[in-house]
Amino acid sequence: MASDTPPLYRQIADAIARQLAAGEYPPGSRLPSVRALAARHGVNTLTALAAYRHLEREQRVVARPRAGYYAALPVAGSRGGESSVPLPSPAALVDLSRRMSTLLQLADERIAVQLHMAEAAPALYPFAELGRRLQFALARQPELIGAQVPGPDQRRLMAALAALAVERGLALPADGILVTHGVTESISLALRHLTRPGDTVAVETPVYFGLLQQLEGLGLKALEIPCAPATGLSLEALEFALRHGPAVRCLVTVPSFQNPTGALMPDEQRRRLLAIARRHGLTVIEDDVFGDLHFGAQRPTPLKAWDRDGDVIYCASFTKSFAPSFRLGWMAAGRHHAALSLLCASSTLVCSPLLQSVLADVLESGDYARIRQRLRQQLQAQVQAFADAIEHHFPRGTRLLRPHGGLLLWVECPESCDTTRLLQRALAEGISFAPGMAFSAEPRFGHCLRISCGQPWTPVLEAAIARLGKLARTL
Amino acid sequence: MASDTPPLYRQIADAIARQLAAGEYPPGSRLPSVRALAARHGVNTLTALAAYRHLEREQRVVARPRAGYYAALPVAGSRGGESSVPLPSPAALVDLSRRMSTLLQLADERIAVQLHMAEAAPALYPFAELGRRLQFALARQPELIGAQVPGPDQRRLMAALAALAVERGLALPADGILVTHGVTESISLALRHLTRPGDTVAVETPVYFGLLQQLEGLGLKALEIPCAPATGLSLEALEFALRHGPAVRCLVTVPSFQNPTGALMPDEQRRRLLAIARRHGLTVIEDDVFGDLHFGAQRPTPLKAWDRDGDVIYCASFTKSFAPSFRLGWMAAGRHHAALSLLCASSTLVCSPLLQSVLADVLESGDYARIRQRLRQQLQAQVQAFADAIEHHFPRGTRLLRPHGGLLLWVECPESCDTTRLLQRALAEGISFAPGMAFSAEPRFGHCLRISCGQPWTPVLEAAIARLGKLARTL
Repeated sequence: MASDTPPLYRQIADAIARQLAAGEYPPGSRLPSVRALAARHGVNTLTALAAYRHLEREQRVVARPRAGYYAALPVAGSRGGESSVPLPSPAALVDLSRRMSTLLQLADERIAVQLHMAEAAPALYPFAELGRRLQFALARQPELIGAQVPGPDQRRLMAALAALAVERGLALPADGILVTHGVTESISLALRHLTRPGDTVAVETPVYFGLLQQLEGLGLKALEIPCAPATGLSLEALEFALRHGPAVRCLVTVPSFQNPTGALMPDEQRRRLLAIARRHGLTVIEDDVFGDLHFGAQRPTPLKAWDRDGDVIYCASFTKSFAPSFRLGWMAAGRHHAALSLLCASSTLVCSPLLQSVLADVLESGDYARIRQRLRQQLQAQVQAFADAIEHHFPRGTRLLRPHGGLLLWVECPESCDTTRLLQRALAEGISFAPGMAFSAEPRFGHCLRISCGQPWTPVLEAAIARLGKLARTL
Repeated sequence: MASDTPPLYRQIADAIARQLAAGEYPPGSRLPSVRALAARHGVNTLTALAAYRHLEREQRVVARPRAGYYAALPVAGSRGGESSVPLPSPAALVDLSRRMSTLLQLADERIAVQLHMAEAAPALYPFAELGRRLQFALARQPELIGAQVPGPDQRRLMAALAALAVERGLALPADGILVTHGVTESISLALRHLTRPGDTVAVETPVYFGLLQQLEGLGLKALEIPCAPATGLSLEALEFALRHGPAVRCLVTVPSFQNPTGALMPDEQRRRLLAIARRHGLTVIEDDVFGDLHFGAQRPTPLKAWDRDGDVIYCASFTKSFAPSFRLGWMAAGRHHAALSLLCASSTLVCSPLLQSVLADVLESGDYARIRQRLRQQLQAQVQAFADAIEHHFPRGTRLLRPHGGLLLWVECPESCDTTRLLQRALAEGISFAPGMAFSAEPRFGHCLRISCGQPWTPVLEAAIARLGKLARTL
């Protein structure tokens, strides 16, 4: 039996050949990196490389030095009716995870001033109050510790979430809400439901690297649509891509305080985005994780509030705005709700009944508005202090747009400044940030960086920003 | 633009045609149910039906009355070298979720005696002690509430889990352990990593319905291998299927106190299973969720302890044995660890740092052994009381094998007894259990039922079992 089985590299090569034949990798498109291929099949990189070499000999793939393997172009004349107009090509997510590995390891290192994670300092959250709430919930219902699935508490939570949704202009039935382990899980479920490997997903660029990694893990291609720090996603670029580019399965957007730019999409543009989505049959996955962190009096209204046709899957969370360690989020997916509920149940079954119960208590008490307000004011002051210091210390030609919410600053240094090199030097001095290269599959943002303003302003931070600015000048 | 787009049913039909062409549904195999197809594409069932009707007209699929749609067989002679020997055909998971809907809703109903869930009563868990531990952790580190990602606590937890693994005969590096939201997430990640839609996965039969739903959600086929209540998975059947059946991507097995049969696989058989796996290049996903609930003095040794070749992905949890509401599990995946870590990060990012810290405290204190021992003794007494009552009250010809651990009883009633009808009658009287039909994609276990012995024995339970027995006699 065993001797009939082809060697591992041939099995992998055959699998790729089938995917090429099925059109999963169109001619000229980039194939998974050797590392990604090895990881996917649980083999070492030499075996993965052997698979590609075999396909290269068969002229099914071509190698490009330092760029990886690409699906071979068809022999001239073998396919008719191909357009000769160059279309916007979807980005291949090759090697993002490898490039990101440094960044992901930063939290483990002894970095004195950590500015690379999109998170607020733990001290900014009402830990004493939440600790008391946990104790109270356990005193009232000690058996919550032993509860495997949520009971009546989940219905309380659903009702409280539906009431919260109403404040945001969303009319949702309580039984149309799904509690998840945060926006990461919500988006992962939505992508798994809406797409198949090889599909193309529209995203903003620059974009949160975690989303690029999600697409990479699901074998999806990212079509990066420009996002301006002032107004967010370019609808002109989106519409052009939908008209002339490859078929797009869905769009993932962060309309309020986008990560990393902090962009806030104006209401008028939100309505236009929905009209475009409707016209093109595009499903929109709305990530509203930062929406509660608005600096102005008015919370931004989610896209979902204008969604009359069920085109928006709304994803929200309490990770940034309430209790990060609870890891609780929720989503409203309309006609996709039943399918996503099943997918969620078979992925993680259920969220902690204990934590769900405490969250329900806080929402019912009305305390969440007060918790949020204090956090928003603190973050606004911190973002302002960071922005002032960056404008003061960074080299001439640096650009920065002050956001109207959230906790991130997107800094565009002069084009000559390589922020990946800047990071290496900064790390040597105990300072971290997120380099621009992490926010696109293309080398678009090598001169940019993202600074997290999650920590209360101190002279140490002032000195760190001054030091970063000085290092940037010397590059 | 919109007028160029084919109607929705044609898009779906084309997608299926592509899958058929790519061999994702081999000729003669069952296609997704109309409901599943509708859910997958987010359309109503009429649209899904229209897609199948279109493919039927094109003779790409055939309809079988009351059984759904099947991939059409190739025209005679169009494919050479096909075997004429009937091979064991993988089961298609059509409509399991629909059939299960009644069962899933039981928890919401006002059922006085609930015996359908594989869970112990919350009161059996050390809730007062765990509540104190939570309070202590928050007093020591109030900022844990605001921690978004685990810090040094996670390293403490990894070390404690590696020590726990040693007790089970597993030598694992701490950095080879992945903390997850329970075995459901671990198995979901492993399946997503190892398989592609259309692949075949070997499972035990009868099998936990949640696993069948996971396979259904991932578009996988279940190859059901008989599992005997005495010794577990039939290795003869497994080896036959591996030699003569369709290609099998992996096996999911619960060697210790299998759900639903309670079977305990003998050590000698575990070693043979690994030899078979090695011979056939089969990856084994080991679900050890019940292993800590042994009634004998000796905890069963996991398969993973004999795994010299990295063929086993080990999945364990604290959901049954320690604190259900924590929803924490862990896995050791050897060479698949890096890929699974990435997949986990892009699926749910991270588990609650607060709950991970408390779990680390308990494991470090050594209290877990004492907690487990008390729970095991309670469950053993309860299982014995349930088994005695069932033997006394159920009709002649009922078979029952007393398990050596866990909290489940698998009851084989006389063949004439339809336990789905029995459940309907029992529900009307306020009693629930899990009917046999839920534990296979095939109608194999219609005369069986699973009783959860998670609740302390009382006269009310005695009366409920007596009533069930009486109802079973009248069917």
